[in-house]
Amino acid sequence: MGEFELIERFFKRKEAPAPDGQAQPAIHSIALGIGDDCALLQPKPGMQLAISTDMLVEGRHFFADVDPEALGHKALAVNLSDLAACGAEPLACTLALALPPERAADEAWLAAFACGLFALADAHGCALIGGDTTAGPLNLCITVFGQVPLTQALRRDGAQVGDDVWVSGTLGDARLALGALRGEWALPPDVLAAARQRLERPTPRVALGLALRGIASAAADVSDGLAGDLGHILQASGAGAAIDRESASHLIAARAFLSSAGGPFDAERRLTLVLTGGDDYELVFTAPPAARTAVQAAGEQAATPVTRIGRIEAEPGLRLIDAHGQTTPWAARAFDHFA
Amino acid sequence: MGEFELIERFFKRKEAPAPDGQAQPAIHSIALGIGDDCALLQPKPGMQLAISTDMLVEGRHFFADVDPEALGHKALAVNLSDLAACGAEPLACTLALALPPERAADEAWLAAFACGLFALADAHGCALIGGDTTAGPLNLCITVFGQVPLTQALRRDGAQVGDDVWVSGTLGDARLALGALRGEWALPPDVLAAARQRLERPTPRVALGLALRGIASAAADVSDGLAGDLGHILQASGAGAAIDRESASHLIAARAFLSSAGGPFDAERRLTLVLTGGDDYELVFTAPPAARTAVQAAGEQAATPVTRIGRIEAEPGLRLIDAHGQTTPWAARAFDHFA
Repeated sequence: MGEFELIERFFKRKEAPAPDGQAQPAIHSIALGIGDDCALLQPKPGMQLAISTDMLVEGRHFFADVDPEALGHKALAVNLSDLAACGAEPLACTLALALPPERAADEAWLAAFACGLFALADAHGCALIGGDTTAGPLNLCITVFGQVPLTQALRRDGAQVGDDVWVSGTLGDARLALGALRGEWALPPDVLAAARQRLERPTPRVALGLALRGIASAAADVSDGLAGDLGHILQASGAGAAIDRESASHLIAARAFLSSAGGPFDAERRLTLVLTGGDDYELVFTAPPAARTAVQAAGEQAATPVTRIGRIEAEPGLRLIDAHGQTTPWAARAFDHFA
Repeated sequence: MGEFELIERFFKRKEAPAPDGQAQPAIHSIALGIGDDCALLQPKPGMQLAISTDMLVEGRHFFADVDPEALGHKALAVNLSDLAACGAEPLACTLALALPPERAADEAWLAAFACGLFALADAHGCALIGGDTTAGPLNLCITVFGQVPLTQALRRDGAQVGDDVWVSGTLGDARLALGALRGEWALPPDVLAAARQRLERPTPRVALGLALRGIASAAADVSDGLAGDLGHILQASGAGAAIDRESASHLIAARAFLSSAGGPFDAERRLTLVLTGGDDYELVFTAPPAARTAVQAAGEQAATPVTRIGRIEAEPGLRLIDAHGQTTPWAARAFDHFA
């Protein structure tokens, strides 16, 4: 199977995906898709295009034996998560794919990968409009395009002193699964299965990002760990934050098991999973206290739990506050691919 | 040096690049660049965004010991070439970079790569607005954004029976250099040096693409070889073409040397270099005979030689015509990464 046949068979849709009732494919914005030198895309009048790129490398971002359907899902999900963090509505994506010969010849693998990718793309009305295919060590590079009304994009630099700090969903479970898969610790099968879903099939919080337009003062997605990604907001906004230790500890979905398990999962480890785990693809965002009801309503509208965990302060850096009001500094660390 | 420091030091510009008098950076279109979850981009009113992605893999698209400055140039040039083929004006690009540890630690290599990339980007007013950096086998994935007035994009599917077939510049010299570097044949130092420039520092024909708007009926860039890329136009347009064997043979810049050298460089080899060499990044395009003067004027305006080499015909496939009017079919083959 050659390069052009591979694209034709697995990545060129014969017709527009059927609307699923929830999200209409934004085909009206796309004049020309796969099969020319460029794709042509047009945001609606008064809209800006939001653009993000993420590259996934075998052995670094996923295991060689990962379920290809989950990989297709995740490769797009991590990009949609960036659109969510900007409050942008997904429009389209491109896919550049380097494949070793054995993968290029593995039709079942390619079909499952494409299936995972298109299922998530269709759910968000995100058309695959172009890309590139080449031989090489397995590498997936997706660039995603969304639209957002002028001046309404959620940015990292808008946090104000006194704002609340919020996060969506749960944090730390992806890292919990990764540790088990790496043999760092053992987990019961049901706990591992649930955590592994979070690692391999993250849910981009697109609906929440849209609902937070005009409400959140700043936002980022949690890909490198809460402490690091909140740290990016703090740095861009020239501020610091105090996080409630108790609220943060409760953010891990496996908290019931972890509390009873003890051993390697003491309180400090649980907190570290939440603060530095990474691969969560939740949103961390800030909003003024006057907007608390609006934030809760946005969470309900998006069917996404939101939790208030702290406050923006003038003093730079990240601090943890315990139940007795004691604060301890947290050396903000993000996951670093070259550290 | 960590991931964020690497981006900060080598890929985040402190200020807009100085205008060079030829091309103004289109910063007015960019609301938010490197350092947020998404970049924000906006074509001018009445414009569509043209988008293309190319991935370059070490050992496949370039040698491990390639001059990093030339690599930075080429990684962007091959993408700008796609914009040229659509008649789009460059606006911006994203860069996703997988680096092995020894490259990530090699500041001279990174600085030279960034220098080559930014020199070409500045010459075309193309801002680097985002990207991704990760550890992994060396892989460069650039997505480029241009703008083109509604309905004026040059496409592959517009060739009409009776149109002339044109190409810009010279073809086959990149493949000539590649063969010498691979040890397939030997070249005198001056011939190799000239051909190697074509391989390592291709010139994207952006100005020509812009000048051909409203004149060319179809266009593509020559990345996989003239026969293959013209074949894409023929397939998309539902037509065939007859190419003049003599005109095609003359398209290789090293023709004087090759004619005198003989040996491995017989007439058939020279023709094969032109038709299937690839990595040329010239434009192949079609236009009605009534537009010949306009095409020549567009070439002069863009300071790019253009040569008429054949004609679009109703009969599918690609044929060569010799000086005696004899036609022979050419089995259209494009370079295929998995062949």
